[in-house]
Amino acid sequence: MKPGARNLITDVPGLKVGNAQDDRVKSGTTVVLADQPAVASVEVMGGAPGSRETDLLAPDKTVQGVDALVLSGGSAFGLDAASGVADALRAAGRGFAVGDVRVPIVPSAILFDMLNGGDKDWGSNPYRALGAAALETVGEDFALGTVGAGTGATTAELKGGLGSASLVLDSGHTVGALVAVNAFGSANVPGHPHFWAAPFEVGEEFGGLGPCPEAVPLTLPKNRTLEALNAKANTTIAIVATDAVLTKPQAQRMASVAHDGMARSLVPSHTPLDGDLVFSLAIGARPLEDPASDLMLLGHAGAVCLARAISRGVHAATPMAGDTLPTWTQEWA
Amino acid sequence: MKPGARNLITDVPGLKVGNAQDDRVKSGTTVVLADQPAVASVEVMGGAPGSRETDLLAPDKTVQGVDALVLSGGSAFGLDAASGVADALRAAGRGFAVGDVRVPIVPSAILFDMLNGGDKDWGSNPYRALGAAALETVGEDFALGTVGAGTGATTAELKGGLGSASLVLDSGHTVGALVAVNAFGSANVPGHPHFWAAPFEVGEEFGGLGPCPEAVPLTLPKNRTLEALNAKANTTIAIVATDAVLTKPQAQRMASVAHDGMARSLVPSHTPLDGDLVFSLAIGARPLEDPASDLMLLGHAGAVCLARAISRGVHAATPMAGDTLPTWTQEWA
Repeated sequence: MKPGARNLITDVPGLKVGNAQDDRVKSGTTVVLADQPAVASVEVMGGAPGSRETDLLAPDKTVQGVDALVLSGGSAFGLDAASGVADALRAAGRGFAVGDVRVPIVPSAILFDMLNGGDKDWGSNPYRALGAAALETVGEDFALGTVGAGTGATTAELKGGLGSASLVLDSGHTVGALVAVNAFGSANVPGHPHFWAAPFEVGEEFGGLGPCPEAVPLTLPKNRTLEALNAKANTTIAIVATDAVLTKPQAQRMASVAHDGMARSLVPSHTPLDGDLVFSLAIGARPLEDPASDLMLLGHAGAVCLARAISRGVHAATPMAGDTLPTWTQEWA
Repeated sequence: MKPGARNLITDVPGLKVGNAQDDRVKSGTTVVLADQPAVASVEVMGGAPGSRETDLLAPDKTVQGVDALVLSGGSAFGLDAASGVADALRAAGRGFAVGDVRVPIVPSAILFDMLNGGDKDWGSNPYRALGAAALETVGEDFALGTVGAGTGATTAELKGGLGSASLVLDSGHTVGALVAVNAFGSANVPGHPHFWAAPFEVGEEFGGLGPCPEAVPLTLPKNRTLEALNAKANTTIAIVATDAVLTKPQAQRMASVAHDGMARSLVPSHTPLDGDLVFSLAIGARPLEDPASDLMLLGHAGAVCLARAISRGVHAATPMAGDTLPTWTQEWA
């Protein structure tokens, strides 16, 4: 296994990513657009999720393909981003056909970035426009760090951000991950520049420092106080994607096991205050040769990609006015 | 946080553990007995679970306490172990009262150890008797490694085993984990003696080697071939327990986040061929002071205990006649 050409989720052919952000609000939105409706699923593992259109992803539900997935800041207000995306997709003729109406299927999840130093006293909800703006920018290349849904994201000690990574398997299948890292926990070992996910790093994609050489205390990062807990400024939301042909139940397994990537890159993760959630997306271009081993390898690759994407997102964050936390580069480079 | 006096799940007061095994069958059973009915929950994350009495653990279901939990080898045949435990508990007057009948509540999960070199050509199912025998041995001290449900367990490169670990939190709450490690993946970094969970090791409880100093290949252990896949010789089953007062929904969150401990100690974990499952158990002796932060810390501690317990179980395995894999000690000590 090695990364694809871009080391981004867009190494999966047929997927495009767009980002939009509002620096004053210190928040933003990320859209993943599938050229054709793609099989999708979701697994929610955190205790405080915020989402829309996730019920239709259950294996027994009728809709078999989604048009786009949206990750957004803004807590529950950010769910409006998907409305902006859905309206624009309808105008473009995309969507599930019901008679002569088309209903774009746009599952979405949000993160809480409402206490990050940005101006949240908006007159009208800005996320519908951010969703539409993100959709207008979709392409195969995009920046990591302080962009899109990662714009206002934070972790325990450092700014969070938007991350991505990919792997091409020996079977020829491509797997990619995209994530907005806004964790209660920490992607770096507290007090050290080293990332928890170091064993899974490819090259120097998040600094190349290797594992932390010192013994790691089991206590939590020092600023994870009750005050921080009550701020509930958390939630890591992600997408793992593949070009494989998957059924909805197979896609659900891929979303489920991808949470291992959060566990390996964020400590703690999946807390009662994180709405940690992973969507999976299968564009259906390359059949599985052996369903058992291929699905196992796709799931493993998704977990590894997500761990790397999380670390890359934190590593790539850049400073903005009014930040409440330093970036990894400010603190450690 | 530091381990309790025994560094075992029985550091949680009111819990006792018993083990029984059949060396010829190369399999066995582990029972956790609660002195009083305890709040319990479960989270299934693997693709191939085997279980009984897990539906009643859902938050909306009526029964609020379980008498015992059973982990067993024997694949679906091993579910009989819980029958032996239930009969013995009824004889002892334990169980959920329905009129003047008592029905012991004994949720159970099994692992697949049917291709491990043992003699599986039994005349009659041996697991009912193993369950009853395990219950007879319950106490606060017990051995780790090749005992009980870990007797016939394997991982990718090395024998698996029965593991346990505990932590006492600053709040005074105790958390413990118990696990039968029978993973498709590997608890050690493939080709190295170092454990994936090294960052979470306390002292030298599984060798004290620290993290693997070499770059880790992203490929899977070399013997994870299609043949191994088809053997489906997998599944890691665990219990995390605490003396805290938890509701069933709170216990469910603790079971869910404990899977992070599998992700951090087994690579890959939660594959389509692993029935990876975690029970949680709250004996209800010590109230939460702050539900948000205490539940978060209990969950984090459970995940850390489970990662350590998994590594300890593999580290403590001992050789038996007919083994198909070496123990950690045979290979690396």
